[in-house]
Order: sequence, then structure tokens, then C-alpha cells
Amino acid sequence: MTFSVATQLTLQSKIDQKTKPLGALGQLEDLALQIGLIQQTLTPVLRQPTMLVFAADHGIAHAGVSAYPQAVTEQMVLNFLRGGAAINVFCRANGLDLRVVDAGVNADFNGVAGLIDRKVAHGTANMAEQPAMTAAQCTLALAHGQALAQGLADEGCNVLGLGEMGIANTSSAALLAHCYTGLPLADCVGRGTGLDDAGLARKLSVLSAVLDLHGKPDDAMGILRCYGGLEIAMMAGAMLGAAARGMVVLVDGFIASAAYLAAAAIQPAMRDYAVFSHCSGEHGHRHLLAHLQARPLLSLGLRLGEGTGAALAYPLLVAAVAFLNEMATFASAGVSEQC
Amino acid sequence: MTFSVATQLTLQSKIDQKTKPLGALGQLEDLALQIGLIQQTLTPVLRQPTMLVFAADHGIAHAGVSAYPQAVTEQMVLNFLRGGAAINVFCRANGLDLRVVDAGVNADFNGVAGLIDRKVAHGTANMAEQPAMTAAQCTLALAHGQALAQGLADEGCNVLGLGEMGIANTSSAALLAHCYTGLPLADCVGRGTGLDDAGLARKLSVLSAVLDLHGKPDDAMGILRCYGGLEIAMMAGAMLGAAARGMVVLVDGFIASAAYLAAAAIQPAMRDYAVFSHCSGEHGHRHLLAHLQARPLLSLGLRLGEGTGAALAYPLLVAAVAFLNEMATFASAGVSEQC
Repeated sequence: MTFSVATQLTLQSKIDQKTKPLGALGQLEDLALQIGLIQQTLTPVLRQPTMLVFAADHGIAHAGVSAYPQAVTEQMVLNFLRGGAAINVFCRANGLDLRVVDAGVNADFNGVAGLIDRKVAHGTANMAEQPAMTAAQCTLALAHGQALAQGLADEGCNVLGLGEMGIANTSSAALLAHCYTGLPLADCVGRGTGLDDAGLARKLSVLSAVLDLHGKPDDAMGILRCYGGLEIAMMAGAMLGAAARGMVVLVDGFIASAAYLAAAAIQPAMRDYAVFSHCSGEHGHRHLLAHLQARPLLSLGLRLGEGTGAALAYPLLVAAVAFLNEMATFASAGVSEQC
Repeated sequence: MTFSVATQLTLQSKIDQKTKPLGALGQLEDLALQIGLIQQTLTPVLRQPTMLVFAADHGIAHAGVSAYPQAVTEQMVLNFLRGGAAINVFCRANGLDLRVVDAGVNADFNGVAGLIDRKVAHGTANMAEQPAMTAAQCTLALAHGQALAQGLADEGCNVLGLGEMGIANTSSAALLAHCYTGLPLADCVGRGTGLDDAGLARKLSVLSAVLDLHGKPDDAMGILRCYGGLEIAMMAGAMLGAAARGMVVLVDGFIASAAYLAAAAIQPAMRDYAVFSHCSGEHGHRHLLAHLQARPLLSLGLRLGEGTGAALAYPLLVAAVAFLNEMATFASAGVSEQC
């Protein structure tokens, strides 16, 4: 923890004086402590919660690694803008502001209203043939993400959820997870949007070949450039920008967690700011979270991405902050302590 | 399922046409289906969500089975009425109306404002000496609970959370769980509000003796009368009353689940209306939920009772209903389906 030990002890003492048995609010107590530490206060406040959803396409989609055609990325962006996707519904339900970013969709949106245009390219290159990004593209995507988070901080937002859309991006995430954590590739490769057994075998075979082609670069940026996606790099940048501004970073599922791995490889202090919102149904996520020794807030078998798990977990952050600020103490309520 | 198969198929088809891979919203899809079936509609609505917290004392508290003195039940009721307890905070945060019921606290509240007086007795008898309740007390507690739920239904509420407060009530719940499920007693007995190893051993020994004294009655009411609590019987009655009126019943932790066991033993159709909100940190709850093959929505290591897990899970019900009602379909959004 890069935060002060004194603040940690004072926060823990405040939590322990609330009218409940010690530790009886479980993970919610850890969450209240973490948010208090991030904000360096005994009375944290969550302001202007925002969900940034980054969309981009992947050259590897043409290798048959997804159950859906690449056109779905563009179609879903339009669905986001019209308010009809799951992430729209959950952000509305839980009071998050939703912003949609074109990080690199393989389509031209021609200035459609509501879309934040940070398109770095019309999708990544096919990593079965060459690195997914050039160094310049990867750096630009990171910088855009960082600037977007900083812009939100300037607006007053201090809690940022991050989601994504990109057909074939579980392939990218699997390779990133393997390279950043050392987990076996097979533990990182899953069914994505719904591959059958044959599809899954094909995906693993394609990704093994991609790995053989590029090997494992020995630096964080090299891994991200070879195997990442534009939406993943931009998410990683947004996470870094958010952490630098002392925002709470709400990490969604498998792909967002792969972006987190990249961000944490670049800046290890990232960890203090990250809240892992859920364990997704995508095969690799459980392994990835276990590797990080992260305890996710939800485990509902979600495997949709878009930031849906993060949006669904957000009320738990609100509840954690509320109990820290609003609950009576044993002394104030006149309640007897343990015998 | 007592509900129509046609409604089930139509609801599932509606869920499957939403713009997401099949099953990608995991347990939230099951929840949307269940709520649609309870309300027998494709467009369910959650109205006037209410949390009923029942408080009562337990004669067995005098046998040293809890880490806290009995006076805490009364003190916490006053804390609820002043708005300082965890359940107050979480109900406010998540938009639930909270009502507190004196089912049988061993104290006189003298008509204090805001408390619903349904006191059946000044606590149960000490079940180490005699059955916890007389048959008349048990029946009255059930009837009060049922009437309270029906009154809420008349007001327009259609989703009811149930919580409790009662020093020593994990002892009651452990014996109920053992008798209704057949799980070994040791699997049902836990640390409650924080017993140490010696306290836990003592609790198990006391409860084993109680079990030897009364045996296992062969009817649902007999078990509830011998080992229950007034708040537990009243919760069971409220669950039955709510189910009879087609309300969604949000079950909290270990003690609420023991009340559910009593309700379901009396009326098996209860199951269709129950949503298991969380798996508590209390030892017996995991076993109880596994026995029921119930998948709780949350698993945050909470062990506070009061309805806190149910209140924290409520936004997931809102989200489930919202996606069913608001998400676009593949056809309406012009999104391509699986290859």
C-alpha cells in the first residue's frame, strides 16, 4: 500500500466502532477501507460515477476465433448510442453516466451524435501475421485513455468504470493474461461469446500459433503492442489516468482485467485503486483473479463485457461508503459491546 | 414450478432475443425469469420494495450461546428506529422502505414511534428447559407475519425483504436447519456474532443437549414451536403471506433461511417465490443453501443479519427486471446473430 499506515488504522478503527460485530460486513468493510484510503479521508464521497465503454475491432477476428461476425462491433456501438444494450440499462438503473468511445472500430461513424471519437485505426492488424499494433498506435491509444480519464476527473468524477466491446477481444485478452501472469495459455482461453467445443479448440490452436510467432516480449508495452487491442490499450490508459488522479477504478470482466494487467505492469501502484467488480463466466477470468489474489464483489456467471459487471457492482460501492459515513457507533447508539 | 410452462417458454424466448450472447447475463437471466413467472407477465414491475425487520429475544440466550448480552436486541431496535444501523443505511441507499416489528423483545418499548408492535411474549422460553414457544404463541406469530405481508400487498408492495434481530437466534436457526434438512447439527452451528473456539464448542454442546431433550418433532409446526423464535416464526408467516399474494420474497441470511425452511415445510410452493439474496459468513448457511440447491446472488462474507444481504442484493432484482423490459432485441437493434 502506498497510502499512509495512520490513515489505514484510523479508518479501520472507525469501521470497527460501527454497531455490528467485528468484521460482520465482510468484503464491504474492505471496500470501505480501500475507498477511504484512495481518497485519504474518513468520509469518502463517490461523485459523478461514470462508465467509459471502449469499442474497437481486431484483425484476428478474421481467423475464426469468435462466434459472431466483426460487424457486430459497429452494430453494438450504435445500440449503445440508442440506449438499448445491457450496459445502457444497468447504468441507468444504478445512476452511472455512460460514455462510449470509438477506440478503433472498423467502420466509419461519420460523426454520429454521442460517440467520442478517438479512433486510432480501423481495428488492429491481424496478430496471426504481425503485431496487433505499431508502437505509435499503442502509445497513442494509452494516451487517449489517460486524457479521457483526466478529463472526467476535471469534471468532478471520482469513480470510473471501464467496459469494452470488440468482436474477438477475448483472444487478445487471453494472450495478454498469459504473457503478463505466466498462467498456461489453455487456462486463459475460453468460449467468449459462445464457441462450441470445436470452436474453442480452433481458437486455442490459432492463439498458440500467434504466441509462437511473436514470443513473449520482455516489457509491458511490447506485450500490449503485440497482443492487445486498441480498446484494451485505451482502457489501460484510462485506468492509469484515473489512478493518477486518485479515482476509484472499477474493473469489469476478463477483457477489462487484461487491460488492468497491462496498466499494473506499467505502474504497479495501480493495484491500490482497482476494485474487481465481478468474476465472469469466461474461463480465464477465474484463473486471472486467483493469480492476482483478487476477491471480486460479484460472481453471477456474467460473460457479456461492456462494463456490465462493473455497473452491477456499483451499488455495493455506494453501500460501503454509506455505512462508513452514516452508521451509528456502539457509543453513539448506546449499544453494549461484546461480553 | 406451479407456473405455466407457456409463460416460462415465452419469457425465456424474450430473454434470448436480447442483444447479448445466449445466457451471457448468467444468474440475472434466471432472476428475470423467476420474477416474470411470479408476476405471470413478460413485463414485470417491482413496486414499493419493503424490508420488514422482526426483532425478538430468546430464552436460550441465558445459556451463554452468544458473544453479546440479551439487552442488545432492545438496543438495536432503538438503533433501527433512529436510523443508525446497517439495515437503515442499506435500505436508504437502495430505495427500500424499512419497517421494524417487535415480535417478542424482552423489553417494553412503551409505544415508541415507528415500531410495529406485534409482541407475542417477552422472548421465547429457554428451550434448554421447555419448547421455545407454546403452540398458541407459534400460531399467533405466524398469523401476525402473514397479516403484515398481506397489509403490505394491499398497500401496493410486491417485493418483500425479510430481516431479523435477536441475540442468540443463530442457535434457534441451527436447530431448525438441522431438523428441517437433516444436515448434521455440527454443520449448522457457527460463531454467530463472534464466538471464539471455546464459545463455539460450548454452543454446540448446549444445542446438542436441547436436541436430546425435545427430539425431532415429525411436523413442521412442531419443529418451529420447539426450536424457533418469535421473530423467526413471524418471518415465516410473512413469507407465506407474501407468496400467497404473489410477492417476490427476498430471503436474507442464515436466520431468514431457517424461517424459509419452516415456511417451505408448511407450503412447498414457497420455493417459487423465494430469491436467496446472499450466502452469509455464518458457518451453517453455506450448507443450508447447498442442501436447497439455491444459488445466492451475493457472497460477501456478511454475517450481520437485519436483512442487510437482502437490501444489498435488491439492486440486482431491479437490474434483472430492467434488462427484461428495456434491452433491445437483435431484430430491433439490427445486430447480427451468432454465425
